[in-house]
Amino acid sequence: MFSLIKKNSETKARLGKFKTSHNEFVTPAFFPVATQAAVKGLSMNDLEQIDIDGLLVNAYHLYLRPGVDVIKKCGGLHKFMGFNKTIITDSGGYQIFSLERLRKVTDAGVDFRSHIDGKPFFLTPEDVIKIQLDLNSDVIVPLDECVKYPTSHKDSEIAVNRTLKWANKSKICFDKNKQPQNLFFGIVQGSIYPDLRKKCLDEIMSLDIDGLCIGGLSVGEPEDLRYNILSFITDNVEERYIRYFMGYGKPLDIIEAVSLGIDLFDCVIPTRFGRTGTAFTWKGQIVVRNALYTDDKSPLDQECKCYVCRNYTRAYLRHLINVKEMLGVQLVSYHNVFWYKTFMDQIREAIKDNKFLEYKTGFCRKYKEESCEDSC
Amino acid sequence: MFSLIKKNSETKARLGKFKTSHNEFVTPAFFPVATQAAVKGLSMNDLEQIDIDGLLVNAYHLYLRPGVDVIKKCGGLHKFMGFNKTIITDSGGYQIFSLERLRKVTDAGVDFRSHIDGKPFFLTPEDVIKIQLDLNSDVIVPLDECVKYPTSHKDSEIAVNRTLKWANKSKICFDKNKQPQNLFFGIVQGSIYPDLRKKCLDEIMSLDIDGLCIGGLSVGEPEDLRYNILSFITDNVEERYIRYFMGYGKPLDIIEAVSLGIDLFDCVIPTRFGRTGTAFTWKGQIVVRNALYTDDKSPLDQECKCYVCRNYTRAYLRHLINVKEMLGVQLVSYHNVFWYKTFMDQIREAIKDNKFLEYKTGFCRKYKEESCEDSC
Repeated sequence: MFSLIKKNSETKARLGKFKTSHNEFVTPAFFPVATQAAVKGLSMNDLEQIDIDGLLVNAYHLYLRPGVDVIKKCGGLHKFMGFNKTIITDSGGYQIFSLERLRKVTDAGVDFRSHIDGKPFFLTPEDVIKIQLDLNSDVIVPLDECVKYPTSHKDSEIAVNRTLKWANKSKICFDKNKQPQNLFFGIVQGSIYPDLRKKCLDEIMSLDIDGLCIGGLSVGEPEDLRYNILSFITDNVEERYIRYFMGYGKPLDIIEAVSLGIDLFDCVIPTRFGRTGTAFTWKGQIVVRNALYTDDKSPLDQECKCYVCRNYTRAYLRHLINVKEMLGVQLVSYHNVFWYKTFMDQIREAIKDNKFLEYKTGFCRKYKEESCEDSC
Repeated sequence: MFSLIKKNSETKARLGKFKTSHNEFVTPAFFPVATQAAVKGLSMNDLEQIDIDGLLVNAYHLYLRPGVDVIKKCGGLHKFMGFNKTIITDSGGYQIFSLERLRKVTDAGVDFRSHIDGKPFFLTPEDVIKIQLDLNSDVIVPLDECVKYPTSHKDSEIAVNRTLKWANKSKICFDKNKQPQNLFFGIVQGSIYPDLRKKCLDEIMSLDIDGLCIGGLSVGEPEDLRYNILSFITDNVEERYIRYFMGYGKPLDIIEAVSLGIDLFDCVIPTRFGRTGTAFTWKGQIVVRNALYTDDKSPLDQECKCYVCRNYTRAYLRHLINVKEMLGVQLVSYHNVFWYKTFMDQIREAIKDNKFLEYKTGFCRKYKEESCEDSC
């Protein structure tokens, strides 16, 4: 599925290619998030125009609403959503573990109550695989146990052991029930502890996986610890696996993670920031609802070639966000997703031309320059 | 500006052509409403795809936010919104009179408080014209006094006299300050009283207007009274004026008004209904959020050729509306605006082919057939 095209000589950045039954795309790549089978504010037409390579969809949410049966009856997730490129579904583990008060975890599985109506559910690792197979997503991710930072070595080890036990059960269930088009990714946990990460990694790689998800990072740990352990992971994972950093990140986070050898990202940030009227530009984030832009006739970003930047001023977008017109959210979200796509295009181009480090340095200097990130 | 192409022989329906400095369109036509300089949930790209002839924008809202100066600095309303077809601005009279507790009306003008922050404002009829000229809209509508149903003959007469006084002042102000591209419509008031309507009409027509707005209807009166007075108006207005029924209506309302000689409509219904998940179809309205459509793989409307009907099922749209994904609102609103456009296309085609009555009968029979309008 994954093939390495080129390795950067100055960093651990890599250019690769990943193929699913729906499309082939070049990495490093970024997938927008379609939590409930929709990218907030963007139609599939928009996503096609932007030429998005794939989406992350949350199995947990779809399991609750509209229910797996509905999607199965409608011909699977791709048909249901009208999206014909790669779809990764996540296991819902992260969502369930975020519910804290609502869940109980045992080796057998997770006991939780719906965040919508409090209805009780119990899911085994096998259930989670079957849900995703019923959705017929391209890439299926097993249930794992994610711990927050800080968690003691002992507790992290318990979570790793459970994650591995579940991974084994999940893989057996996957192999028994899969269709040829379904792929299986493993997840590495282990908090910030190299020995646990290594143990988890080795056992996950022994499972004949189609790619590796990196979980349990960006959960509150300091940046230096995050990048140390990330670098440790990419040093220890076999080259032939695509490396997918789940739920990450802002532009500066992404370019750093790429330099440490990450191939794939997903994150709600482009659309979540869009909803509050914050736009990404090559000079940093701008909060377009600010009074500063009241009669600013320039586009969100001078260099951006997206539909929004070609047609609308900051003044108009500011007005829309300010008077709570949903079109404002739609347009800023569209721009942000387009901007992320362009950012990844440039990263790939730079790796291809062996100029990644130069690109990274230039980007970070320019991006920080006028960033108003702190005020967002 | 307006030229009559054809008169239907069996009804008072007419085919016409209206020209502004931005475009020429064939009537009967329907304008979606862009209250705050945006059609809720639709981009200008969407409106271009649907091939909308024009928009109604509310001067009152834009006067409050972002303010006329901002739009003037941005090159006028068309540039500000990125819309290059006809824009009609309304005077805000209807909005101000809806505020009841917030306003005081004298012959000099209206004293009101902003619905946003309670800030006091006083606007003369001349102010209202200047605001719209600053916005540089194609069609400018003077301040009028709209009374609710029922209102006594005496009180209606007072409102008509004030409306006429204001119309005179407005026209003088318009003539003094207009650019060649600006057009001026008069408004006829008079509640359900033929003598008042006639008096108002005659005096308005003496003002060298570019078109006639019909105000003060659909404000609570029974349907038969509405259609009687509407028919009275179209019998008494000169043929050379475009007749614009402001803020109207549902499909059955529109086709009835067309048969009585109305040329132009605007209404928030397509997008307002879209926001609650109600879609227009050739068989009537359907409330797509209903459980009935949980796994319905058919499009909103079998016959509709819009982007939404070509790509999405009722099951998916129902899911989106149900989980409060804004994409659901966007898609149903898009369909509804497209459906209204197609409806008007068919009406024009029928008048052209001298088959309007046949079309109307067929439409009403089919549209009522499976309508669930009452449950909406």
